[in-house]
Amino acid sequence: MADNAEHEQTQEQEYDRDREFLTVPLLSSHRSNPNSTSQVAIVGSHVCPIESLDYEIFENEFFKQDWRSRRKTEIFQYIFMKWLTCFLIGLIVSLIGFCNNLAVENLAGVKFVFTSNMMLQQRYATAFFVFFTSNLVLTLFASMITALIAPAAAGSGIPEVKAYLNGVDAPGIFSFRTLAVKIFGSVTAVSSSLLVGKAGPMVHTGACIASLLGQGGSKKYGLTWKWLRFFKNDRDRRDLVTCGDAAGIAASFRSPVGGVLFAFEEMASWWRSALLWRAFFTTAVVAIVLRALIDVCLSGKCGLFGTGGLIMFDVYSANISYHLMDVPPVLLLGVVGGILGGIYNFLLDKVLRLYNLISEKGVVYRILLACSISIFTSCLLFGLPWLASCQPCPFGALEACPTIGRSGNYKKFQCPPGHYNDLASLIFNTNDDAIRNMFSKGTDSEFQHSSVLIFFFTCFFLSIFSYGICAPAGLFVPVIVTGASYGRLMGMLLGSHSDLNHGLYAVLGAAAFLGGSMRMTVSLCVIILELTNNLLLLPLIMLVLLVSKTVADVFNGNIYDLIMKLKGFPYLEAHAEPYMRQLMVGDVVTGPLQMFHGIEKVGNIVHVLRSTTHNGFPVIDEPPLSESPVLFGIILRVHLITLLKKKSFLPTPVQTGGDAFKQFSSGDFAKRGSGSDEKLEDAEFTDEELEMFVDLHPFTNASPYTVVETMSLAKALILFREVGLRHLLVIPKVRQRTAGSIPSEHVRKMSSSHRDDTVAITALLGRYNVRLTWLISGVKGWSASLSDQTLNNQFT
Amino acid sequence: MADNAEHEQTQEQEYDRDREFLTVPLLSSHRSNPNSTSQVAIVGSHVCPIESLDYEIFENEFFKQDWRSRRKTEIFQYIFMKWLTCFLIGLIVSLIGFCNNLAVENLAGVKFVFTSNMMLQQRYATAFFVFFTSNLVLTLFASMITALIAPAAAGSGIPEVKAYLNGVDAPGIFSFRTLAVKIFGSVTAVSSSLLVGKAGPMVHTGACIASLLGQGGSKKYGLTWKWLRFFKNDRDRRDLVTCGDAAGIAASFRSPVGGVLFAFEEMASWWRSALLWRAFFTTAVVAIVLRALIDVCLSGKCGLFGTGGLIMFDVYSANISYHLMDVPPVLLLGVVGGILGGIYNFLLDKVLRLYNLISEKGVVYRILLACSISIFTSCLLFGLPWLASCQPCPFGALEACPTIGRSGNYKKFQCPPGHYNDLASLIFNTNDDAIRNMFSKGTDSEFQHSSVLIFFFTCFFLSIFSYGICAPAGLFVPVIVTGASYGRLMGMLLGSHSDLNHGLYAVLGAAAFLGGSMRMTVSLCVIILELTNNLLLLPLIMLVLLVSKTVADVFNGNIYDLIMKLKGFPYLEAHAEPYMRQLMVGDVVTGPLQMFHGIEKVGNIVHVLRSTTHNGFPVIDEPPLSESPVLFGIILRVHLITLLKKKSFLPTPVQTGGDAFKQFSSGDFAKRGSGSDEKLEDAEFTDEELEMFVDLHPFTNASPYTVVETMSLAKALILFREVGLRHLLVIPKVRQRTAGSIPSEHVRKMSSSHRDDTVAITALLGRYNVRLTWLISGVKGWSASLSDQTLNNQFT
Repeated sequence: MADNAEHEQTQEQEYDRDREFLTVPLLSSHRSNPNSTSQVAIVGSHVCPIESLDYEIFENEFFKQDWRSRRKTEIFQYIFMKWLTCFLIGLIVSLIGFCNNLAVENLAGVKFVFTSNMMLQQRYATAFFVFFTSNLVLTLFASMITALIAPAAAGSGIPEVKAYLNGVDAPGIFSFRTLAVKIFGSVTAVSSSLLVGKAGPMVHTGACIASLLGQGGSKKYGLTWKWLRFFKNDRDRRDLVTCGDAAGIAASFRSPVGGVLFAFEEMASWWRSALLWRAFFTTAVVAIVLRALIDVCLSGKCGLFGTGGLIMFDVYSANISYHLMDVPPVLLLGVVGGILGGIYNFLLDKVLRLYNLISEKGVVYRILLACSISIFTSCLLFGLPWLASCQPCPFGALEACPTIGRSGNYKKFQCPPGHYNDLASLIFNTNDDAIRNMFSKGTDSEFQHSSVLIFFFTCFFLSIFSYGICAPAGLFVPVIVTGASYGRLMGMLLGSHSDLNHGLYAVLGAAAFLGGSMRMTVSLCVIILELTNNLLLLPLIMLVLLVSKTVADVFNGNIYDLIMKLKGFPYLEAHAEPYMRQLMVGDVVTGPLQMFHGIEKVGNIVHVLRSTTHNGFPVIDEPPLSESPVLFGIILRVHLITLLKKKSFLPTPVQTGGDAFKQFSSGDFAKRGSGSDEKLEDAEFTDEELEMFVDLHPFTNASPYTVVETMSLAKALILFREVGLRHLLVIPKVRQRTAGSIPSEHVRKMSSSHRDDTVAITALLGRYNVRLTWLISGVKGWSASLSDQTLNNQFT
Repeated sequence: MADNAEHEQTQEQEYDRDREFLTVPLLSSHRSNPNSTSQVAIVGSHVCPIESLDYEIFENEFFKQDWRSRRKTEIFQYIFMKWLTCFLIGLIVSLIGFCNNLAVENLAGVKFVFTSNMMLQQRYATAFFVFFTSNLVLTLFASMITALIAPAAAGSGIPEVKAYLNGVDAPGIFSFRTLAVKIFGSVTAVSSSLLVGKAGPMVHTGACIASLLGQGGSKKYGLTWKWLRFFKNDRDRRDLVTCGDAAGIAASFRSPVGGVLFAFEEMASWWRSALLWRAFFTTAVVAIVLRALIDVCLSGKCGLFGTGGLIMFDVYSANISYHLMDVPPVLLLGVVGGILGGIYNFLLDKVLRLYNLISEKGVVYRILLACSISIFTSCLLFGLPWLASCQPCPFGALEACPTIGRSGNYKKFQCPPGHYNDLASLIFNTNDDAIRNMFSKGTDSEFQHSSVLIFFFTCFFLSIFSYGICAPAGLFVPVIVTGASYGRLMGMLLGSHSDLNHGLYAVLGAAAFLGGSMRMTVSLCVIILELTNNLLLLPLIMLVLLVSKTVADVFNGNIYDLIMKLKGFPYLEAHAEPYMRQLMVGDVVTGPLQMFHGIEKVGNIVHVLRSTTHNGFPVIDEPPLSESPVLFGIILRVHLITLLKKKSFLPTPVQTGGDAFKQFSSGDFAKRGSGSDEKLEDAEFTDEELEMFVDLHPFTNASPYTVVETMSLAKALILFREVGLRHLLVIPKVRQRTAGSIPSEHVRKMSSSHRDDTVAITALLGRYNVRLTWLISGVKGWSASLSDQTLNNQFT
């Protein structure tokens, strides 16, 4: 017994001695690059507080054991649950999308009908007061719930979802309160005549629903269902969120194929063919449910919903003819659209920066900003139509002129009977109706040059100023309406130089401006086709999209990428920057390395977890467990916390083998969703416990992805992105000495002083809870100072 | 001087001694798995003779130096060339697609007009003779050029292109002669009334053109352009081939968006968003050029081309209404379509196996097989319409009845005046016209049950027997025509239970059968939409595709995957099989490892290159170049051959440093295209040269992807597939000893006998010139014998 105790003590001393040695950063001793210190400083100062998601399947012995013990029925249940969840996502998103539209059409409809009736009675001041007050109240409601309840619900939400799918776990974006605020805020903001869209918020809504279903409901509000708490990792939830955002676009535009392509082209960072199929299923559910609901509404049971509601500009079912000679004006449309899109993105970026400064001052300022934009908008929408001259009603118009009720091309506004105000038809209307008016054909003589010009400028600037306010606000519809007015204007200016009708120009103008601002190709093309329901337009739309995207790419980036950058999300790009080829992985890893032994003292673990915020730790086996110190694997912070809380510690540092599995169920290690991780602060340890040991082997991922330190940063980035990593182990490689003949007595001389060269691990990329991208963007400023001299250093 | 010579001799002896040691397989000494020997045997016996492509950018010092020295104009030139090549691909593919159609419509048209005229004169025997002989001659021509000139042109070519994009370099698939045979063979085979399509061959044609343009023309025929020989690696060519196959589908169906999606969903194994854009550009060029060419043809300058030619069933421009009650019959259509699709794939697989046995006997047998299928087809097509009873012409038909000339729904065949033969309208016609007849609406009473039934069975079996013959033959059109007849039949059988018209049932039936056989979702959906030009069908088509794919997936795989398996292409799947999680990478690497020193003797390199067929070799640095033996990187066989042929050898084993770059230009290491690699056999070496040295360092990829030997095979597979690797280095990790207390005297004891544990490399996955997949499929048979005992071994 005494022998045994002494032996244990010796072992513990060994452990303590090793610890000292092992926390010394090994990599720095191999560094030959003179710039290394400055890099460390720069990288260290740019650490991002946002955590990242674990998209890699964590293959430890426990996972393998659990996986192997699964029966066929469990595997079937898993597959079934995935499809069921997708079905539910489709169903709920389509219902919400439909209700959203119903609410907006009725809210805005009542407002416009009421105002128009006042105008008919020539009570203009009262009409303005009603219009102004209702808009202000609706905006106030939207901005107040956003600012006070869920600030994460502001904006379109597409950048947040895109960042999430890239692995950025921005806090609170998928919570239940965000969902609620997003839905109600979007309805009121759109109804309040602000120039904001509802497609972006629908995408966020779809993603929220998918995320909540994926984690089995909202834990905070007790709205959880046990049978739904089925998905135990971020990877499954990522797939669901991808399907959710596809459903969002499908529900906004009734564009199921466009939704899938949008999710693929713009949103997703990783994609598998199985996911394509599942997203397609989700949007098919949306398409079928929407179709059935609209069937119900067509019988007139939906108030002011009418046939419109969901955007569907079914205006080109007849044949359109165009020829090669129509290509040059279309090219011109694309080029100018691209330039406008570039300017739009540039201005939006600047305005958002300005708004950020205002928002930082406090909640009151945010609400005031929203209200002032609402007041400004109300004044513009009510004031501008007075500038337009009244037009006599055309002879034999298909619709009533002036328009009676809500929809229609011929708004009376202030005009005498038998006349209409063309600017009011566009501006004093919902956005959906304005777009429908612009896209309509056979209306070439309906609008005046000046009216369309005023409308274009109003939309262009108003949408820029409206997006950044503290309320759910999409960009799709504003961009489409601006682009449509731009296209129509171009069509008017070209006049007799082109045979195409102005409605078609409006469609192509919308495509050009969308391409110039959002920079998508296939998905926008399909969305526009599904909106206009005419496939014959396809070659022209493809042409205009390609040209405008190419032109706009010269100036700046995709609008969502700009917003993401502004929000500070560490997005991981798919392509490597040129300077990354000139850096090695070893150049960007920093700081002292924290690692654990295969069998570790509880006190050490608690100390390290409390003193750092790292989320992954390398586990190494040292003698006596192995003959030489070798890398065993990597262990996650969350798993360590779960282990510690279970408190099944060992009195001596011996391996437990298979016993460990019996004390845990797979649910203990499941990740339930963002923000629901257990905290170490909840646990207390006695001094006796702190002196005990834990066997980390069964819970360590024994096959982590590793790279050698001389791997170029560009290749490591590709690995990070393609495989979806959070942590990457960097292992050392001794570089050869300078060239020349070497005395033969050095040959085969291996002293133990070289031991650190043979330890299999030196550093861990991404261990600051952040992604490689952040480390790299930290180095970015430094790359400018890359001189020829430092480049040459890499060759010596 | 004497000292120096002696010193060199010592060094050389060191090298030889090291060599002995290093060729011993290091990994086997760590093996604890008792199954290792049997695995080696199984894996070794399944080595595939097909080489794989280098999709990984090979980052050696030479490449980096070259890359860094590129000026801005060169980078711009590179980008410009990529786009120009895509433009050329689009242009050429659309021209070929148009000419193909023109040729088929005129060849088949003349044949049918001539035969029909004979029939009108009641000269039935002559008509049959003309029909029979022209078909036989056309088939004979197609099969002879295929069998004698380019056997790789047989079949649809889609499996070959799909395998290529996965990294399988099947010989000859993209040669100039394959291209020529594919074009002419496809035209004649389709014109000869065989039930084969032209979409598959168009995809292969597009890929061929892209590949030839990417390697600057055909080297063999001297058709090369220097300004086009711009793309130096397989990666660039892979992107071009992806664009090429998108263009192929776009040209066959006038479906540009469908083409891009087909390339993405079915063909490509790797995808980047930049590629989406480029593919979209290519298909846009195709769409615009086709549109212009058809404008020309509409003025009647294209012979019998008429308005049809390119498949474009523009039959649903009017509104279609359907309601929720139409969903059950559509579901039924999907389920039965899925079952039929599964049976179709099963039978096609069996017939192809049978045909393989016949083909192996020789060229004559192949041609005889093709001829007998042609004779059989001619007899069926001419004979079957006699079974159908003549129908009186409907009153007030929109078209002339019976049909005069080539197209039209009412073929007279043997019927008296004022009557038509409905089966002849379908069967005695080109496939495109048959599909157009089936899809047409307002023709519910035109066809008899028996006629459609006969047509369905004829198409189903004839297409199965026709595909495998030695001629270019696609599957798309046969599957569409079979599916359309199946759908129409279902519509007739359901009769009054459904309001949908039979033409719509035919469209949905085609979708169901396509889904059941090809198992695509989004791309098929878009292709069908672009074919039928009606977006209102979208929800129904999505539904039917989802159901039929789901049902068919229960039975067997995608038809192209089955063909690919039959052809023996080692395709790398995106998902890991369950048993792969239970194997480690170390379990599948085999045989003695061949590796080189950083500075290697010429004789050794020549010996290894001549005695093995490996394409990649690890390079290690031993003392005295480094303090301990470490992995430096990996070098490719082609680069070694280039190095050897340059013969700039060193008399002593010293490093050359930067001098190496001056002797080579980047063109020396460029890979020009498949089959154009230089051979070692062309070079001769003197004895003196064999004793000299080469410094491999500048040409070695110093940052290869590495995994530790305990990495699970599933994760390694994902790495292979996601990053697009050809070689993967496996590095050792010493496993811990069995648990228990260990005498403390073992601690920190490191003798040189452990040296082999610290050598950084043990094995190289994929070094048999084959991909991981092949190694895995070699192990597949063995996985059945995985007992609980071996599983438990992994835990001890």
